[in-house]
Amino acid sequence: MNRHVNFEGLEVGYDIPALPGMTEAEIQTPCLILDLDALERNIVKMGDYARAHGMRHRVHGKMHKSVDVALLQDRLGGSCGVCCQKVSEAEAFARGGIRDILVSNQVRDPAKIDRLARLPKLGARTIVCIDEIANVADLSDAAMRHGTEIECLVEIDCGAGRCGVRSTADVLAIARAVAAAPGLKFSGIQAYQGAMQHLDSYEDRRAKIDIAVAMVRDAVEALAAEGVACDIVGGGGTGSYYFESASGVYNELQCGSYAFMDADYGRILDHDGQRIDAGEWENALFILTSVMSHAKADKAIVDAGLKAQSVDSGLPVIFGRDDVKYVKCSDEHGVVEDPQGVLKVNDRLRLVPGHCDPTCNVHDWYVGVRDGKVELLWPVSARGKAF
Amino acid sequence: MNRHVNFEGLEVGYDIPALPGMTEAEIQTPCLILDLDALERNIVKMGDYARAHGMRHRVHGKMHKSVDVALLQDRLGGSCGVCCQKVSEAEAFARGGIRDILVSNQVRDPAKIDRLARLPKLGARTIVCIDEIANVADLSDAAMRHGTEIECLVEIDCGAGRCGVRSTADVLAIARAVAAAPGLKFSGIQAYQGAMQHLDSYEDRRAKIDIAVAMVRDAVEALAAEGVACDIVGGGGTGSYYFESASGVYNELQCGSYAFMDADYGRILDHDGQRIDAGEWENALFILTSVMSHAKADKAIVDAGLKAQSVDSGLPVIFGRDDVKYVKCSDEHGVVEDPQGVLKVNDRLRLVPGHCDPTCNVHDWYVGVRDGKVELLWPVSARGKAF
Repeated sequence: MNRHVNFEGLEVGYDIPALPGMTEAEIQTPCLILDLDALERNIVKMGDYARAHGMRHRVHGKMHKSVDVALLQDRLGGSCGVCCQKVSEAEAFARGGIRDILVSNQVRDPAKIDRLARLPKLGARTIVCIDEIANVADLSDAAMRHGTEIECLVEIDCGAGRCGVRSTADVLAIARAVAAAPGLKFSGIQAYQGAMQHLDSYEDRRAKIDIAVAMVRDAVEALAAEGVACDIVGGGGTGSYYFESASGVYNELQCGSYAFMDADYGRILDHDGQRIDAGEWENALFILTSVMSHAKADKAIVDAGLKAQSVDSGLPVIFGRDDVKYVKCSDEHGVVEDPQGVLKVNDRLRLVPGHCDPTCNVHDWYVGVRDGKVELLWPVSARGKAF
Repeated sequence: MNRHVNFEGLEVGYDIPALPGMTEAEIQTPCLILDLDALERNIVKMGDYARAHGMRHRVHGKMHKSVDVALLQDRLGGSCGVCCQKVSEAEAFARGGIRDILVSNQVRDPAKIDRLARLPKLGARTIVCIDEIANVADLSDAAMRHGTEIECLVEIDCGAGRCGVRSTADVLAIARAVAAAPGLKFSGIQAYQGAMQHLDSYEDRRAKIDIAVAMVRDAVEALAAEGVACDIVGGGGTGSYYFESASGVYNELQCGSYAFMDADYGRILDHDGQRIDAGEWENALFILTSVMSHAKADKAIVDAGLKAQSVDSGLPVIFGRDDVKYVKCSDEHGVVEDPQGVLKVNDRLRLVPGHCDPTCNVHDWYVGVRDGKVELLWPVSARGKAF
């Protein structure tokens, strides 16, 4: 009996890509694999950085959507909690034992507000963003109804052009309304500059964050002048965390992609002009794919297409190979140029996804690999939790 | 007690977007909704077309990944079975009661071949594509091991540039090998021209299918000259089914998107130069999204981003509205231009996704709506079934 027959003997085997102990060649593809050594090094490194710079690190759970990864970031990286973007994600993290959760987004639908107000009953400190005064009464009513407390951060749009207010006057007005509302607590400022994280140039990114820092400092000082302190001044991603850490005004980082890396982030440059995936962070996340047809001599067809990844930020890159290239993606197929015909059917390739967040969101499992063997399977706990 | 409180009272309510009887304004967003009247009309129309033209219709289940939609296509559209792209999808359809399943793709991994060979034990006629002789022995061994029969279609690459052979000589060689292999049955030809389906011009599409038809006819005639008949000559999508139906050589259509429609397909033109979503097929699938922030006067932020859809074929289009436009998509947000400020927080919008297949693959549920009320919830049975 070889291993795949054992594997197949389990009915549950239909729905999981691997079992512990398997080799990479035995894993059912396409699926996500994590290089556990690389992942752990990334997590330790960022944790050390935050500690050395006097910053808390609230890791961004919207990237991996995994309770297990969040718990690892707590254990190895000393994270202070999790942020995420949806109430349903927060529910998944709270059920999984995460005790400090920021929904770094607006929550406006009455049913979602009701669910948010019940999160503290699962044992989680519950924090949410707010950018319109009209939201205050709804949040307050829900917290009072459930006898819970919701902490609020006023969101500043510091350049991303999505949610958030644009003036210190608006920050003050909303902060005052929150402070006066029963069941709510004003806890600070959310100012994540999402739009600049992927600019290649270090100096371009610094210029954008300088603008954000000026807006945030103005708001924090105006609040202080009213005697209001900010417990949390949060922001900072994988492309900017050193700027927020040096700002003297932010106190919480919210990095996500550093843990896994992806091809689009990997291309941005550090202060020395080096790609950040060439030293700062390691690729820990891969889509494992197999060659499924090589009927043409110079072209291999692999089994990871649009349903195994998001290509919004470009095609995946084949890890560690210069001789073959992923050049085209359709629903279930990838076309790999193989000019020298080096690939064979059933060969495995590791793809670095173009964009890790929406790629993780289409998979049910992370297959953790170490020393060439499957060590564990972790569910993508909040996969598809969109509402 | 209002409805959302009832809804929230159910723990399961955390994981489903709606309950039957709700209005559209009460559905938790983002989620997929189906206009059941439009869906049924599309299915009946394509069924009538196939019947009138003497074609079988093997509906493409890889688009919707739903046992319930497939059963509706059987009941209202007289479909002969389902095709899909992955063994795990085929397992989901077989478990759901579909009795005639084509995996319109190559299956090469030993574990997947083993699973394929066990599908007939679930009661399903099992058909697979093949494009290399080396695959014959593996398939045959697995069928013998399980005492089952796998039917094989030789796949011709008639223009898509992915899997498939390019010459009649190769078709004959593989067909002979299949016919001689115990446990296997040669059942015909697979020749789906996927690459031309989205060409805007009707005449450009016709020219591409003319090439495909010539290749298929040559292969079918060469097989006939050896006394070998093709039970199935399959192909034809939403952008081409009338060409294959008129070819005199194809006998099975494999349409998927006609049932749901999407923005990218909707733009292609029919023989009169009309968009196909302006009369030929109705939009039945929508991403329901809510306005979650309107802190800027001319811009509404909605809650459907990259984790609620795939933008590989372009951004979604807001259905039935000329006054607002979806212009930007990030992980969890969409930016909607609202120059006249007509939208309010919590307003619902119906988005026509750019590309239906990978969009359906990120959702767990279809919410079926009729006459303004939720009528049913169907699971996306094979969501994430990628291996």
